[in-house]
Amino acid sequence: MKSYIKDALDNFLFEYETPRQVLVKNRRVGIVCRLIQLGVLAYIIGWVFIYEKGYQSEDTAIGSVFTKMKGVAFTEMNGVQKVWDVSDYVFPDQGDSSFVVMTNFIITRGQAQSTCPELPDERNRCSSDADCLKGTFKRHMTGKCVNTTSTCEVMSWCPIEDDREIPNPALLLAAENFTLFIKNSITFPQFHVVRSNLVEVVNQTYIKTCLYDPENNKLCPIFKLGDIIRFSGFNFSQIARVGGAIGILIDWECNLDLNIQNCIPKYEFHGLYGNAKAGESQQASVGYNFRKAKYYMEDKVEKRTLMKVFGLRIDIIVHGLARKFDIIPTLTAIGSGVGIFGVATVVCDLVLLHLLPKRDFYKNMKFKYTTLQDEETTIHLQKEEQVKD
Amino acid sequence: MKSYIKDALDNFLFEYETPRQVLVKNRRVGIVCRLIQLGVLAYIIGWVFIYEKGYQSEDTAIGSVFTKMKGVAFTEMNGVQKVWDVSDYVFPDQGDSSFVVMTNFIITRGQAQSTCPELPDERNRCSSDADCLKGTFKRHMTGKCVNTTSTCEVMSWCPIEDDREIPNPALLLAAENFTLFIKNSITFPQFHVVRSNLVEVVNQTYIKTCLYDPENNKLCPIFKLGDIIRFSGFNFSQIARVGGAIGILIDWECNLDLNIQNCIPKYEFHGLYGNAKAGESQQASVGYNFRKAKYYMEDKVEKRTLMKVFGLRIDIIVHGLARKFDIIPTLTAIGSGVGIFGVATVVCDLVLLHLLPKRDFYKNMKFKYTTLQDEETTIHLQKEEQVKD
Amino acid sequence: MKSYIKDALDNFLFEYETPRQVLVKNRRVGIVCRLIQLGVLAYIIGWVFIYEKGYQSEDTAIGSVFTKMKGVAFTEMNGVQKVWDVSDYVFPDQGDSSFVVMTNFIITRGQAQSTCPELPDERNRCSSDADCLKGTFKRHMTGKCVNTTSTCEVMSWCPIEDDREIPNPALLLAAENFTLFIKNSITFPQFHVVRSNLVEVVNQTYIKTCLYDPENNKLCPIFKLGDIIRFSGFNFSQIARVGGAIGILIDWECNLDLNIQNCIPKYEFHGLYGNAKAGESQQASVGYNFRKAKYYMEDKVEKRTLMKVFGLRIDIIVHGLARKFDIIPTLTAIGSGVGIFGVATVVCDLVLLHLLPKRDFYKNMKFKYTTLQDEETTIHLQKEEQVKD
Repeated sequence: MKSYIKDALDNFLFEYETPRQVLVKNRRVGIVCRLIQLGVLAYIIGWVFIYEKGYQSEDTAIGSVFTKMKGVAFTEMNGVQKVWDVSDYVFPDQGDSSFVVMTNFIITRGQAQSTCPELPDERNRCSSDADCLKGTFKRHMTGKCVNTTSTCEVMSWCPIEDDREIPNPALLLAAENFTLFIKNSITFPQFHVVRSNLVEVVNQTYIKTCLYDPENNKLCPIFKLGDIIRFSGFNFSQIARVGGAIGILIDWECNLDLNIQNCIPKYEFHGLYGNAKAGESQQASVGYNFRKAKYYMEDKVEKRTLMKVFGLRIDIIVHGLARKFDIIPTLTAIGSGVGIFGVATVVCDLVLLHLLPKRDFYKNMKFKYTTLQDEETTIHLQKEEQVKD
Repeated sequence: MKSYIKDALDNFLFEYETPRQVLVKNRRVGIVCRLIQLGVLAYIIGWVFIYEKGYQSEDTAIGSVFTKMKGVAFTEMNGVQKVWDVSDYVFPDQGDSSFVVMTNFIITRGQAQSTCPELPDERNRCSSDADCLKGTFKRHMTGKCVNTTSTCEVMSWCPIEDDREIPNPALLLAAENFTLFIKNSITFPQFHVVRSNLVEVVNQTYIKTCLYDPENNKLCPIFKLGDIIRFSGFNFSQIARVGGAIGILIDWECNLDLNIQNCIPKYEFHGLYGNAKAGESQQASVGYNFRKAKYYMEDKVEKRTLMKVFGLRIDIIVHGLARKFDIIPTLTAIGSGVGIFGVATVVCDLVLLHLLPKRDFYKNMKFKYTTLQDEETTIHLQKEEQVKD
Repeated sequence: MKSYIKDALDNFLFEYETPRQVLVKNRRVGIVCRLIQLGVLAYIIGWVFIYEKGYQSEDTAIGSVFTKMKGVAFTEMNGVQKVWDVSDYVFPDQGDSSFVVMTNFIITRGQAQSTCPELPDERNRCSSDADCLKGTFKRHMTGKCVNTTSTCEVMSWCPIEDDREIPNPALLLAAENFTLFIKNSITFPQFHVVRSNLVEVVNQTYIKTCLYDPENNKLCPIFKLGDIIRFSGFNFSQIARVGGAIGILIDWECNLDLNIQNCIPKYEFHGLYGNAKAGESQQASVGYNFRKAKYYMEDKVEKRTLMKVFGLRIDIIVHGLARKFDIIPTLTAIGSGVGIFGVATVVCDLVLLHLLPKRDFYKNMKFKYTTLQDEETTIHLQKEEQVKD
């Protein structure tokens, strides 16, 4: 028994199986086959390995963004001069990755809770109290029709905001010269790599004077608002008037097999919700505004200043993809490549065995036939075989 | 030398190797093998290619969301009527993807910096000044025990907020009828595809009148707040009272090999932090509230109105996955499939060579033995071989 | 015709092809080959399957975060005592995943729109009106030079903020003892799994008393601010003074083939934009501040209290990766493994046919030569073959 196992182990260890092959000396078949194999090889090496870097594994980044605006705007409305600084025109204050820079506004001062007639427009005219149903959820009507304006009376913050006309040109056109400073930090958790957009060449001195442009200063993290709009394909004065949403994509594509200093961000600018380039301005998606209330007490009564803010909503989106050599994708690519080599052999065999004039000859060379269906012939064959092999 | 290289090159170019094979004519083995091969083929074509679309490469989306609420609520507290509009009940104002709609609140008016006794509850009663230690970080105690309330005196914004009882029913129950408009734009950076949830069929006319429902208007980007709660499996009046967090998942699954118009979003609603469906209401995770202060000056003294806001925190989460035909995953899948075909051959050989009664016959057919251990037999064999092949 | 198809089908169904192989009995080759094959097998099973879990498919999480700070700070400035609670020192209020805890500030009270001289520093001194050009965008100059300060007069919110000196030590050093409560919910959309960081062991009782520490309470979702800073490698008093940005990474790595209770979060803390551990404090990236204005009306004039807020910006970043058994990656790994096995055979053949002394013998065994170039020999060979096979 023991010797039996030993024998089996010996056989397993010291034996080596290799497939027997036919070497076909045929120019046509040979060239066709070598071309197919060369194609497969070129694909595996050229495309999978070199172009698509199939020997690397990937990781996506998690990022964090901090922003800071700079600049001052000046307005003159009804003879009142006002200077607007960052605290006045950026919402929210704390430097998030998504924020709004006010470029235009409609201000309604001194609103208090009371009753007043609605603004007249095409739909809400009334001729008697019967036209004003009490208490729907869109506006809280008192049920009265006010004669002077021919509109229903509502209970609301009064006076009612009049936003039928948007100031033209935009009130804070100076926003074009505001600058935006972006700090972005990314982490590739799988590779334990942390990078900041303040890369090695962006030092203290450089940062104080630089301004981003896509040709000469493509790593400078300071952007002029007017440039951002222009890079996105919009017209500043138009978008400043009605508002709009711009995405700043910080794109990191890092090959970590190279020096980490080559891992640098690329800034891209595009309009969100409606592309400026196509004629999509007719779409339901143009303009950006929201209302902001500043509350205060006056003579023990709560009042508010309501602002309808038109502005640039800027979303900073971080997209990071790092690649690094990894044994698993490498071997998977090689293994799968060997498999595709097998496909090449199958194709060549098809040519050899079915298309060539001498196909029967090659079939004879390649295949050894055996039929065990009839027992007699089997025994016959078996003997023959034992003699041959 | 030159002719030697030429010969080698000739051999390489014009030769073709193909494995020699045994054609076993055996019904049982044949059927077993063909079934296994058919299974592998069905798996590769049916599962990998058709079901899992293994011939496509994937890209995840980066998205941007803008929201806008509409609606007015009316409250009457202590005889004072008040109307609440969007600026009053949505935090923050600027239409972020994560925001809170206030549905209930506890208001504490006219708080100023001063000293006042704490609210009595089970834990903070005192009988003498000794019970009130000075200056812990949770509340800033003065060290005095106030007789009238039997609680310690603290330095704080006074009067102290009394949040022991949450208004029931919720004060802004009208929130059920508020509507939420969502604009969502996504980008698949790898495929250079940009889409908005205002897809082709959602035009200006449709958007003015539509209201989302999962059957007939599943592309309408306008949602009733009450519906959102209902779709998430919650009870509106309960969640309006104590607050809660709802996730709206905008799910994009796009097959970019088809027409881009088929790339449409799917809206899903579910409770965050504690599922409404399971009996998880006992968990530590129910309710949502935060405090908001509105500051003002009164007679040169800074005061504030403190609101404990209970509300719906709505998080809009975008999840996008696009697939498109790509040569690499296609060939990887084919190559790996050929590999699995190889496994099929191994299994069939096992059956053939170890399980069939005629296994020795097949072994003889398949293998040619050679031993080079003993030099004598080798020479002997070598001669024999040369005669045979 | 019919019988022809039947024959072809019979042949296809009942025939089985298996490659003919040479069994080489050679110790050296045998051992080399088995070792190579064993290596490949060990790599596939050990590395791909067990270590890298290649039999599982992956899904990344989409998460949602809610935060709540607790704690009270006390300051005494110019004899005025003030207590700061959460509404006073956290921005924004509503418990977002990214927020700022104020630890230090410069306050400028009673700013109103007017004209006043700039603060003197190295760059903006003037000796006559000619030095003060009118109306640049950074500051809105009136064109006058004020003699008393020797600086230009600007139109602005006056008085001008004096931020030349940052209070030292930080005014809200008590922030060290503030606590942060984090609720995090994640969804793996592909696997339909929802988890919260309030896992099974974190019940109502535990949550009331626990405090996170990485050894004994690593699942407690309540963190001391001082601890967070310490875990990130910073010095609290320094960072409290000038501000800083900290990332809290909630890392979920879940093997969904195991019990769902093993799917628990791991909290990690690190500095954003400039690492505390390396000597990177010289980088352009240290400090965090922003300005916040509180507006109010005084005698019908809009005024504001401007605060330059220094603080901890805390970004909570959720990173989730779940894995679960899936048939596709399993079979892809197997198929690709079989392919790599093929590579092993190629290597062994190289040894056998080119390096061994008896290589010519093995070549004879493995290959059957055929030349169809000269027609005469072909016919000759063909006859020979028919006799042999």
